[in-house]
Amino acid sequence: MAYTKEQLQGLYEFYKNQLLGDTIPFWFPRSIDQEYGGYLLMRDEQGELLDDDKAVWIQGRAAWLLATLYNTVAPKQEWLDGAKAGIDFLLQHCFDTDGRMFFHVTRDGRPIRKRRYFFSETFAVIALAAYAKASGDAAMANKARELFGKCIRYATTSGLLEPKFTNERPAKGIGVPMILINTAQQLRDTIGDPRCDDYISQWISEIERDFVKDDIRCVMEQVAPDGSIIDHFDGRTLNPGHAIEGAWFILHEARHRNNDPALIRLGCRMLDYMWERGWDEQYGGILYFRDVYGKPVQEYWQDMKFWWPQNEAIIATLLAYVITGNEKYADWHAKIHHYAYQHFHDAENGEWYGYLHRDGRVSVTLKGNLFKGPFHLPRQEWYCALLLQNIIQ
Amino acid sequence: MAYTKEQLQGLYEFYKNQLLGDTIPFWFPRSIDQEYGGYLLMRDEQGELLDDDKAVWIQGRAAWLLATLYNTVAPKQEWLDGAKAGIDFLLQHCFDTDGRMFFHVTRDGRPIRKRRYFFSETFAVIALAAYAKASGDAAMANKARELFGKCIRYATTSGLLEPKFTNERPAKGIGVPMILINTAQQLRDTIGDPRCDDYISQWISEIERDFVKDDIRCVMEQVAPDGSIIDHFDGRTLNPGHAIEGAWFILHEARHRNNDPALIRLGCRMLDYMWERGWDEQYGGILYFRDVYGKPVQEYWQDMKFWWPQNEAIIATLLAYVITGNEKYADWHAKIHHYAYQHFHDAENGEWYGYLHRDGRVSVTLKGNLFKGPFHLPRQEWYCALLLQNIIQ
Repeated sequence: MAYTKEQLQGLYEFYKNQLLGDTIPFWFPRSIDQEYGGYLLMRDEQGELLDDDKAVWIQGRAAWLLATLYNTVAPKQEWLDGAKAGIDFLLQHCFDTDGRMFFHVTRDGRPIRKRRYFFSETFAVIALAAYAKASGDAAMANKARELFGKCIRYATTSGLLEPKFTNERPAKGIGVPMILINTAQQLRDTIGDPRCDDYISQWISEIERDFVKDDIRCVMEQVAPDGSIIDHFDGRTLNPGHAIEGAWFILHEARHRNNDPALIRLGCRMLDYMWERGWDEQYGGILYFRDVYGKPVQEYWQDMKFWWPQNEAIIATLLAYVITGNEKYADWHAKIHHYAYQHFHDAENGEWYGYLHRDGRVSVTLKGNLFKGPFHLPRQEWYCALLLQNIIQ
Repeated sequence: MAYTKEQLQGLYEFYKNQLLGDTIPFWFPRSIDQEYGGYLLMRDEQGELLDDDKAVWIQGRAAWLLATLYNTVAPKQEWLDGAKAGIDFLLQHCFDTDGRMFFHVTRDGRPIRKRRYFFSETFAVIALAAYAKASGDAAMANKARELFGKCIRYATTSGLLEPKFTNERPAKGIGVPMILINTAQQLRDTIGDPRCDDYISQWISEIERDFVKDDIRCVMEQVAPDGSIIDHFDGRTLNPGHAIEGAWFILHEARHRNNDPALIRLGCRMLDYMWERGWDEQYGGILYFRDVYGKPVQEYWQDMKFWWPQNEAIIATLLAYVITGNEKYADWHAKIHHYAYQHFHDAENGEWYGYLHRDGRVSVTLKGNLFKGPFHLPRQEWYCALLLQNIIQ
């Protein structure tokens, strides 16, 4: 099917209303910590606080969200002030003395855990960049650019971060180039940075060269440094929702580059391959893990439905449809949209549950924890609303 | 109900037949790696190899199992030779240059990952001790005792192992005293060690003092160093199957100490509390995680049924029944026994599935991975058969 203009108008209104009337009000203003700054986000289905700790990834992501709403939806003072609360907390409490960021801190900012990754840093970059644009504060823009430079060093300098594994079976994940593409895109769209275009091209090339396997119609989650498949549990494990997120980062880049046909083809191939691998024909929704050769996956919860792969697939299918006009993508978008809002959305209390069993029953009712907060769902509703706003005008 | 003598006889035969006719033949002899030593244990439901890597915990546990069968069931040469294959691999390939052990190695023994725990070491202690008894090799007995001494140092010397978390919110898990109790019991039962009795008493006292909460009828999985409950996600998370395993280690100790009444009471309280918390009234079986205050658990797969909590609950309920004669424990044992063999056992191919959804559907069909191998199930069948053999004679 093709979406009619009226249907696209309806989707635009739906996403905008969900974002501003359901998702954002679940989190804000109540989650802004008036005493210590930052956000109190680990909440149950009604919004009661379950834990007052702060996950650094999500502190950054929430600050990004509020600053981005200010930049792109409406210049509301409460969003700017809300973003500032997160930025201040990040800068005051979330950096260790070695310049790296923590992963998990107490309400008042004492560190609980630091991990051997730099994703806290990438989310702080997009928060700082969006806030720098919103506030016009040049010092914040400099901090964003400086921290982006650090991320690039961590990504490219072997041995700079302590490895979790030995070097006997070297591997690399698609997560690093993917998240850096999105970080660079955000930086470019808000405050600009001359490094971004070249880096984005490099990371896209790396994904295409090493992770996308046309012969078996697959996007790998992890490969050897030369791109070969590592035939062990971890190397065989696919994360379709993650690869589909990568697909739309590349489709977004295609649009930015005047609908670059090579990038459109790449993004659509990634989406096609991983929709085939991840879509659950029996119950609907994107499954969490699959084995590249159809063998049993080591992770026991492999067939659960998490919220975020659905969010990423909603964006990717809609964006692919808007760019290509291929009706297949409208079909897929309609399927994943209806499945997700029917099963994940909590119509009574707002927001989405995070974790469903394969058959759609809710496994855990919480709305926020160390890993889930106001990011994938509001980003999806925001991105799709803006995308559709451009189309229907 | 009470079990009749005939029923106990039937259970004895069932466990013995399952162990020797179903569980052990699934794994051996095919899993002994004739080329590199050690065991190839990551197998699918039919027993085909999924991954030739070796998990060090499970290499030690499998060597312990084979040596223990030799010591306690029948002096079969194939079991002694099989145990030796694992012992040789552990000694040749699984120790780092700093004396600590790896967690995950390749088939030929190259290290993939080392973790910040010493559980590889505790399982190597019980393997070495059982093999020392089986082979009469005094050098192996010395290695077992020396490595046990190292485990005690790791457990008692703050800062010796690199911590995963900062020291802002100090916590300790029940896993360390529990596993050390069992390690010491195994050491004592095989080759003897004068340190064991005192240490076991200390660890049991620590569990009773800091982890068992009579006022709320609960055994905590993690507490602050002073035994107080840490009211955050991790601190509130209970692992009923784990606490029930701890309960039977203590009941085992009670029997060893001429049915020490204080230890019987402690073990039964732990079992009672965590049966109440963990038994799934709706579908049967022991649930994986629960929150101490009934709040949502952070781990999304919290309501799955794993194989090993069922194994530990089968041992604990049978042992509690044998010691106390309380019919409640026979009821519980009958319930968990029937649930587990009905849902986990693979009658066609042998052994058990490891991971079921809450409602009993199989989530992943594999029989072995980094975390599952020939240990909890054969140990349960072996322990229960030996226990019943003593009763019915």
